[in-house]
Amino acid sequence: MHMSIGVVLFPDFEILDVFGPIEMLGMHPELFEFRMVAEARGAIASVQGPKCLAEDEFGDSVAYDAILVPGGQGTRREVNNRSMVEWLRHRTRQTQFVTSVCTGAALLAKAGVLDGRKATTNKMNFDWVASHGPRVLWQHDARWVEDGNIFTSSGVSAGMDMALAFVSRMLGEKAAEDAALWAEYTWHRDAAVDPFARAWRAR
Amino acid sequence: MHMSIGVVLFPDFEILDVFGPIEMLGMHPELFEFRMVAEARGAIASVQGPKCLAEDEFGDSVAYDAILVPGGQGTRREVNNRSMVEWLRHRTRQTQFVTSVCTGAALLAKAGVLDGRKATTNKMNFDWVASHGPRVLWQHDARWVEDGNIFTSSGVSAGMDMALAFVSRMLGEKAAEDAALWAEYTWHRDAAVDPFARAWRAR
Repeated sequence: MHMSIGVVLFPDFEILDVFGPIEMLGMHPELFEFRMVAEARGAIASVQGPKCLAEDEFGDSVAYDAILVPGGQGTRREVNNRSMVEWLRHRTRQTQFVTSVCTGAALLAKAGVLDGRKATTNKMNFDWVASHGPRVLWQHDARWVEDGNIFTSSGVSAGMDMALAFVSRMLGEKAAEDAALWAEYTWHRDAAVDPFARAWRAR
Repeated sequence: MHMSIGVVLFPDFEILDVFGPIEMLGMHPELFEFRMVAEARGAIASVQGPKCLAEDEFGDSVAYDAILVPGGQGTRREVNNRSMVEWLRHRTRQTQFVTSVCTGAALLAKAGVLDGRKATTNKMNFDWVASHGPRVLWQHDARWVEDGNIFTSSGVSAGMDMALAFVSRMLGEKAAEDAALWAEYTWHRDAAVDPFARAWRAR
């Protein structure tokens, strides 16, 4: 059995929000596989410039077991993109898990997916993201948050820690530890410890 | 002035080796810009599956200020790809800086670029990489190594730490600290401390 992760791309997505989690999950190809999905298939440029290919588009009827929504400058536009918000609202009802990294939580919040649920997002733009989900139980001090089937992470790099927690949930802690070892990554294992919440508050 | 980084892609490149450094360097777009280059332009699939676009190809005469060579399963094939090895040997003489992540060092070693220089690579495949550069001064216990204009990093995630060191060299330590803060990344700042060298030795 494979778990198909639909990774949402849009112009000006943050590149590590997408590929950090894919690296960690991808250490276990016996379970996880990835499909890149955008409003229209084709090459999508990241904030940083490099372009990645979306093989699926919103009109397709591909089934995903989980959805990953990255952040990035493009979320400022996408919160007002009806196609994006409606697709997320509709599709997240059909998937087993929903995940976001950084300001990707703004898109899930706008789609109502996080209503009544605990969630977090990045610290630099926390207030902007939170403004899109007045009924969300926002957690300021958290590296990532798990609320049932919804995983949301803090900014950029936190997506890797969240992804390892997702590996742990699916395959056990040893599998997450192995993924971190193979990637030579020091896993930040405690979801409640958020050095960047403190760092931003201190500024 | 911009510093153009030529990022080498090949089939089965490791996705975080490429996009971890790009994330960290990309926090300073006032200096760094990226061009993806491959033997033939077009979509190149990572080990993990997602495809990225190479806009330049080896026959082009695009000038780069620095070259970044990622690792990944594909390096096993690319060490025997004459086009790749010759391109690296020739092009690295024309660029100000040369960098590699993980097993990307095997390609630089095979091209003779690291002869007489200190370098490192990932820990799981250290012996395989080292076998391609008998005249390289391999450093086993190092998160990354700077030898003049050559930066080589340990496995996968170490590329982000090396990239921050490169930011520090180019723009100063505060610029690297800012990049890490914006990416909510806990920068592993000491090149000499390598927890994964110990971890692999202990197995």
